[in-house]
Amino acid sequence: MNVLVINCGSSSLKFQLINSDSEAVLAKGLCERIGIDGRLTYQPAGGEKAVTDKAMPTHTEAIQFVIDALTDAQTGVVKSLDEINAVGHRVVHGGENFSKSVVVTEEVKKAIEECNDLAPLHNPANLIGIAACESLMPGTPQVVVFDTAFHQTMPEKAYMYGLPYEYYDKYKVRRYGFHGTSHSFVSKRVAEFLGKPYDATKTIVCHLGNGSSICAVMNGKSVDTSMGLTPLEGLVMGTRSGDIDPAIMEFIAKKENLDIAGIMNVLNKKSGVEGLSGVSSDFRDLDAAAKEGNARAALALEVFAYKVAKYVGSYAAAMNGVDNIVFTAGIGENDGAMRVKICSYLEFLGIKIDEEANGKRGEEIVISTPDSKVTVLVIPTNEELAIARETVALL
Amino acid sequence: MNVLVINCGSSSLKFQLINSDSEAVLAKGLCERIGIDGRLTYQPAGGEKAVTDKAMPTHTEAIQFVIDALTDAQTGVVKSLDEINAVGHRVVHGGENFSKSVVVTEEVKKAIEECNDLAPLHNPANLIGIAACESLMPGTPQVVVFDTAFHQTMPEKAYMYGLPYEYYDKYKVRRYGFHGTSHSFVSKRVAEFLGKPYDATKTIVCHLGNGSSICAVMNGKSVDTSMGLTPLEGLVMGTRSGDIDPAIMEFIAKKENLDIAGIMNVLNKKSGVEGLSGVSSDFRDLDAAAKEGNARAALALEVFAYKVAKYVGSYAAAMNGVDNIVFTAGIGENDGAMRVKICSYLEFLGIKIDEEANGKRGEEIVISTPDSKVTVLVIPTNEELAIARETVALL
Repeated sequence: MNVLVINCGSSSLKFQLINSDSEAVLAKGLCERIGIDGRLTYQPAGGEKAVTDKAMPTHTEAIQFVIDALTDAQTGVVKSLDEINAVGHRVVHGGENFSKSVVVTEEVKKAIEECNDLAPLHNPANLIGIAACESLMPGTPQVVVFDTAFHQTMPEKAYMYGLPYEYYDKYKVRRYGFHGTSHSFVSKRVAEFLGKPYDATKTIVCHLGNGSSICAVMNGKSVDTSMGLTPLEGLVMGTRSGDIDPAIMEFIAKKENLDIAGIMNVLNKKSGVEGLSGVSSDFRDLDAAAKEGNARAALALEVFAYKVAKYVGSYAAAMNGVDNIVFTAGIGENDGAMRVKICSYLEFLGIKIDEEANGKRGEEIVISTPDSKVTVLVIPTNEELAIARETVALL
Repeated sequence: MNVLVINCGSSSLKFQLINSDSEAVLAKGLCERIGIDGRLTYQPAGGEKAVTDKAMPTHTEAIQFVIDALTDAQTGVVKSLDEINAVGHRVVHGGENFSKSVVVTEEVKKAIEECNDLAPLHNPANLIGIAACESLMPGTPQVVVFDTAFHQTMPEKAYMYGLPYEYYDKYKVRRYGFHGTSHSFVSKRVAEFLGKPYDATKTIVCHLGNGSSICAVMNGKSVDTSMGLTPLEGLVMGTRSGDIDPAIMEFIAKKENLDIAGIMNVLNKKSGVEGLSGVSSDFRDLDAAAKEGNARAALALEVFAYKVAKYVGSYAAAMNGVDNIVFTAGIGENDGAMRVKICSYLEFLGIKIDEEANGKRGEEIVISTPDSKVTVLVIPTNEELAIARETVALL
């Protein structure tokens, strides 16, 4: 079965066509500047990447171009639309309505719309993508996979904030968590890879990328995670602040003469390691700058590592222990020095890192020594494959 | 030497007269409703508590009444003002200007005033108290003891937020921490009590009261603490939210049509265990309600314990281990059930609680078993005594 995996933003659309039997990516690409002018990037497996400017007034044109490219006589990877057997959509916020992936129905679309308030930039775009696929591929089954769904198993003590209870009752203000598809995929894979039962292990997943989050997975279930009502909470990220004293918002608002929207813009787009360092949100740039003696770049890396280590410690408490700690996503998979820095705080858990194993790249690998009391691993995440699998499982 | 310890609020003033040789409290009391009408509560050691309505237009009249009461022929505890040898003031915020207690000078007062922005409700009141004492007790040395000073040893990675660096440069936005006098007093006492060197132990102090904070004390120095720029950050408290997703503020502001000041009022005064439970900010009330089957009261207690345990785990990571965990302040000293609930998450650190020892009240006691890998204790805090000691040490 071939699954078209779609991640639809307000003016962009990422896609992969995945064959679910071989789990190979047949082609992938990106539509950008939808509603502005329009640009398609398309790359078949083993082929050249092609970038074409194409007018895309709406997501419908964008998806039509994707279909055209996938079925193109020369560079396409399937003969016709009939060979695209299903569509899997990434949807950011499922609120409390969705604790797992579902086949799209009118009711499902309505329930996603009900969560628009919780993700005003993302959910409406996701719904537009679904509608465009429905109009262009009538009859092709569509599945939605939620970033929040995996975390719906969190207990009340983990998802309730210390706020007036009525905010939960009236507006569903609570911790939801994100990156659920990745946390689920990686934590399952750890158990498989180690040959341990998924439902009887305590794993902490460190998904460290431009957006970063940590998840405590106990016996196959998410029991706590660092992102909250929105993806702003938790770790210090590329440009996001993560946890701060909430009173800072009032303080800065007065000093800088900003309103709440202005403050939110700073916290989401001008903070994190970029704001701290003044250099970049990219850890490779920070590493290079720190090596050249840039103190603020070095500080940003220290703050990041320290915060990750503290979250790992707190989730060891949340589960009363930890069997496995796994690093994934851009930084988690590729930045061995950062992994060592983080683990240097965690020797009290009996962790010992195998420097040689930690130096290898791009594979699933145990990076702790055989006598380490906690197994530390690198497991590459693959959200598109996870979405394809979820899609097939429902059809 | 007799030291008058003063904790001055905007409309109130708490005091104790402490003999620094015997460390006995000679008398204590409270002035309330200063600037409104005025009420003095006064109690000499071993004597009756007396409450008198007295007009107190300013703090100067309040302190005059305190002096009158302390030197009263019948209920007083000293003969004249000459027997009050020094005054020790609690000051909330010393910013980065003060890393220890100091004798009051004109320069010191100016430096405290420079921190008014960081504690707009507290520092101005503290300064008024100092001025009133200066005018009524000219020549009597005065010392200021800062809530923030003990935490000035925190490393940069612990005190810097993931915010634009210019906010630190321009406005000194950073983590300061509070309850420093208590964290310092209790962590020192733990080392003494156990006969261990203060400068070679890792202690986590859980100061759990109506305001709560946790501190990691490594080798005699505060290296991290849960309160931040203000006392709002960190644990879920009586009526304070503690940590939340910063984006919640914008979300609630829109839903409830509140401005930032309105949100801050909710987060400081209507949140915490009181907001969650809808019952009370007092843990005795929550315990009683939970026992009667009130699910939200039980939830508030669960959330509190879980959050404390997670902070302990994170500070074990911050110090790469922990030798002692100590409970202090109202809840920490008196709520044995809460201590057990918190420690139940921490068995992975090798903690074992001695239920019988944990059942005792009102004394310095080890509540872990002899084979517990971490020593868990209850040590009553005494901020007034700590202030008196600091005062004497500087004169």
